[in-house]
Amino acid sequence: MTKASVGTVETKYFTFANSPEAFSLESKEKLGPVTLAYETYGTLAQDKSNAILILHALSGDAHAAGYHKGDEKPGWWDNMIGPGRAFDTEKYFVICSNVLGGCRGSTGPVSINPKTNKPFALDFPLITIGDMVAAQKALIDHLGIDKLLTVVGGSMGGMQALAWLVKYSDRIRSAIPIACALKHSPQQIAFDEVGRQAIMADPDWKSGNYYEGKSPDRGLAVARMLGHITYMSDISMAEKFGRHKKNNIQPFKFTADFEVEGYLHYRGDNFVKRFDANSYLYITKAMDNFDASKDKPLHEVLSGKPLKVLVIAFKSDWLYPAYQSKEIVKVCKHAGIGASFCEVDSTYGHDAFLLEIEEETHLISHFLKSVSQKRGKA
Amino acid sequence: MTKASVGTVETKYFTFANSPEAFSLESKEKLGPVTLAYETYGTLAQDKSNAILILHALSGDAHAAGYHKGDEKPGWWDNMIGPGRAFDTEKYFVICSNVLGGCRGSTGPVSINPKTNKPFALDFPLITIGDMVAAQKALIDHLGIDKLLTVVGGSMGGMQALAWLVKYSDRIRSAIPIACALKHSPQQIAFDEVGRQAIMADPDWKSGNYYEGKSPDRGLAVARMLGHITYMSDISMAEKFGRHKKNNIQPFKFTADFEVEGYLHYRGDNFVKRFDANSYLYITKAMDNFDASKDKPLHEVLSGKPLKVLVIAFKSDWLYPAYQSKEIVKVCKHAGIGASFCEVDSTYGHDAFLLEIEEETHLISHFLKSVSQKRGKA
Repeated sequence: MTKASVGTVETKYFTFANSPEAFSLESKEKLGPVTLAYETYGTLAQDKSNAILILHALSGDAHAAGYHKGDEKPGWWDNMIGPGRAFDTEKYFVICSNVLGGCRGSTGPVSINPKTNKPFALDFPLITIGDMVAAQKALIDHLGIDKLLTVVGGSMGGMQALAWLVKYSDRIRSAIPIACALKHSPQQIAFDEVGRQAIMADPDWKSGNYYEGKSPDRGLAVARMLGHITYMSDISMAEKFGRHKKNNIQPFKFTADFEVEGYLHYRGDNFVKRFDANSYLYITKAMDNFDASKDKPLHEVLSGKPLKVLVIAFKSDWLYPAYQSKEIVKVCKHAGIGASFCEVDSTYGHDAFLLEIEEETHLISHFLKSVSQKRGKA
Repeated sequence: MTKASVGTVETKYFTFANSPEAFSLESKEKLGPVTLAYETYGTLAQDKSNAILILHALSGDAHAAGYHKGDEKPGWWDNMIGPGRAFDTEKYFVICSNVLGGCRGSTGPVSINPKTNKPFALDFPLITIGDMVAAQKALIDHLGIDKLLTVVGGSMGGMQALAWLVKYSDRIRSAIPIACALKHSPQQIAFDEVGRQAIMADPDWKSGNYYEGKSPDRGLAVARMLGHITYMSDISMAEKFGRHKKNNIQPFKFTADFEVEGYLHYRGDNFVKRFDANSYLYITKAMDNFDASKDKPLHEVLSGKPLKVLVIAFKSDWLYPAYQSKEIVKVCKHAGIGASFCEVDSTYGHDAFLLEIEEETHLISHFLKSVSQKRGKA
């Protein structure tokens, strides 16, 4: 079968918890109404057994595949989703939603607070990875799906997959956490905190109340530049940039004259056009606070459940090192769950989950086949 | 022999290149007069053969050992310098100077520009690691020392030791570059650039002209926080902080509630009290531009010279990984120079060069003994 794009797609919106405060958060605070932006690709089978939920990373959104009308760039995991691809839309019904707290169509700090008719800003309650997943479950309920074939994502997407295992293991048949962790190490928290501090140090941030004026673009750009260093590896940076300098004359002493500096600036400048600084604060805090075994050891939660888990890590990923993925495998084995582990030999660092398409396609398509077959036999 | 502190010390100042523009920089720009803050410990032998030059890292200064009157904290490498210590002041005359471009008593961007009678700010010329070393050579000349027994330092101090090998190999008998590199990788440049961007994004920076008003403390603190993450290791952070939270109630959503966050804040806040933001820009840029083989391959420069080199790296140092130290050893071997290499098994990350005192004392005291003996035999 030839591999192809899903073609032109549109983002849809699902609003629930319509009365104010109808959605209870893990913090006991309440929120409502809640909207999730989402996209779907492929067709839901009559028995609704072929649904896959794709979970995005920190800066991702609902647009995982295909093209929005007029766009030249496809969705963020396009080469994984489509006819003949890893998430084969000839076989599977693929869903991706923007997370709660995000700024790409879902309810977040930039949304209008019904109590004040102004953006929430920091009046938005602290949310958790568990809250993001609870909102996704409301969407799955709305779509009439009882059991997802799998939940899958890299980085924060992987943490959401783990949160599905924690909260709704009876609503999924499998999970594929990629390049993630049961909980953040202090180093991961530290990187996030420096990003948050960069945002909050920007006077344009104004304690979050910047929606009527200039947004804290400089601080958010610094946070994003730092992020990008952690997404790459020493080797991938050496291969991509070396110590090459840009040829044009640089009149200012501290101009970004190394190519790697120019790349980071470009990434930072682009990011601020599409991302909300307060969302960055809320989402990174949710990641830092996540701990899959916080309420109950995860192996106890999962013990004896009919689940399959595929854990993927990447050799040069120093932001989410492979030892953290092995801890996930260990918990699954402890719980008696079928868990496969693969450490892919990649030089791309953490970004590998977006780039090692051939290897991921191989691993995931086989895994999905085995999960589907298992069900057939049951 | 018992190990002891050198006791109370005072910083001295050496001014040279007294007429304006008397000191030529590698950029062909000129500077003058130039002052270096420096300290000495121990006594210079009559034949002046026992002098050791200690070279400090990015945020260090001339105060390497002993106590300034009234201070409770000793110099930054105190446990390495003193009677019976690695740099035994009963045997050696130990010198440490603050680098050119610094802000701890040496001429730098905060110094008064004789042309304007105002601080240089960004009118200060771009300086190089080679310029720092050229200024140190003027100090050594002034002290009447023909040949240094060794030049030694960690991190940027190690890069200065390499610059001594490049520029003045006839003025030293040995060198001890610790936890450093022949040149920065793009990842190292990238971390520095994010720090610089954090400073320059701070509106109080005012293109460097902040000396009459508020200084860009928020930006500099963010740069320093990021620095501290890179100085530690994943393991050392896990051991020191884990995911512990501070007990006091945190009313603000994005308060630093994890201990690791509080530690970074503390480090950032303290740093801005003693460091100049423009110096941070100039010094990091000098590190990024450094390339020991830029003008001529280093192995050709060193070929056949009567030098000994001890290279030290640390296992968990991911900022200056051991492979970079091995490249230094390779160059020395290629040049036919006696080079020893030790990769110390430490969990402290890059900070290990300040903390692995026992191991360093063992390696360095033996090395110095062999360098001294070699001279005796020659």
